[in-house]
Amino acid sequence: MSVGDAAAKERKILVAVDEGDESMYALTWCLTNVISPNSKDTLILLHAQAPRAAYTALDGTVSDFIEWRVGNYDCASGYLFSTDIMSTMDKYHNDAADRLIEKAKNMCKDHVNDVKVETRVESGDPRDVICEMVQKLGVDVLVMGSHGYGWFKRAFLGSVSNHCAQNVKCPVLIVKKPKSNNLGK
Amino acid sequence: MSVGDAAAKERKILVAVDEGDESMYALTWCLTNVISPNSKDTLILLHAQAPRAAYTALDGTVSDFIEWRVGNYDCASGYLFSTDIMSTMDKYHNDAADRLIEKAKNMCKDHVNDVKVETRVESGDPRDVICEMVQKLGVDVLVMGSHGYGWFKRAFLGSVSNHCAQNVKCPVLIVKKPKSNNLGK
Repeated sequence: MSVGDAAAKERKILVAVDEGDESMYALTWCLTNVISPNSKDTLILLHAQAPRAAYTALDGTVSDFIEWRVGNYDCASGYLFSTDIMSTMDKYHNDAADRLIEKAKNMCKDHVNDVKVETRVESGDPRDVICEMVQKLGVDVLVMGSHGYGWFKRAFLGSVSNHCAQNVKCPVLIVKKPKSNNLGK
Repeated sequence: MSVGDAAAKERKILVAVDEGDESMYALTWCLTNVISPNSKDTLILLHAQAPRAAYTALDGTVSDFIEWRVGNYDCASGYLFSTDIMSTMDKYHNDAADRLIEKAKNMCKDHVNDVKVETRVESGDPRDVICEMVQKLGVDVLVMGSHGYGWFKRAFLGSVSNHCAQNVKCPVLIVKKPKSNNLGK
């Protein structure tokens, strides 16, 4: 097998994307350094959306949103929400996931013209979702930022990248965002 | 920046090699999947050689060798070695490191013709050596097997790949050897 065979193979490269800058940097780095010219690679953009129980407790942005909604509805406890509020929160999260995936897709278009891009949004603990999707889809390479899911969530969930590196069977590329945004060099 | 820019850049890719099959698989995977056709990449093959204090205690192969030598010299305790024996052990380890690096270089030649290959053998705890070399040489990508340095050493040293993934600043590619030796697919 000689150099350039990567271009001839049909590799499935899964990139785990989240709201953090680091995962978008990881995607850009992958597009620049891993995807081969004229490759038959398929890029799978996966966003693991935390389940409702997690994001009501752990997501700072939504927590702010909840407080505002609760204030409007005179419900100070912050633990009991009406069905309407829960639906609104779900819609907020789904819309955020759609925007995130759209942003990632646009980044792919900006970098490469000929790579096939698939997208997936799955609900669950990111650690489990990513490992399950790698296995289910027969992924050849998993690409992810080294952090992801914010410091507050990480404190509860543990390190997503560490968990995945230990548990998936395919090669894992962990990309850290440098202080200066100087790709690959 | 478009696809194919990786070929135009001068990337330094450090591959940590050891005596295990997994690190050689990681090297092969890197040669097949990471090195771009007609690239200006420099491949740095690094073998972190455990210091004498570690390999006398932790290396199964050398332990066998020591027992044999000790038997010949009627020194049953296994803890007190003459200067000659220590020198012989050092030579054994250095020769093993040379053979390992030579094997890795030959693998590079078998896979690619035009990539620049540099080699380094450094003494010390593999975790420290790898992190220091990444920093010192300004490496762009670190490639390593997920295990390395054997289960016995790992039990004492901790996971080398986990440590490096957490501590180096560049992207880290952790490659696992599948049960079926089917590269990249």
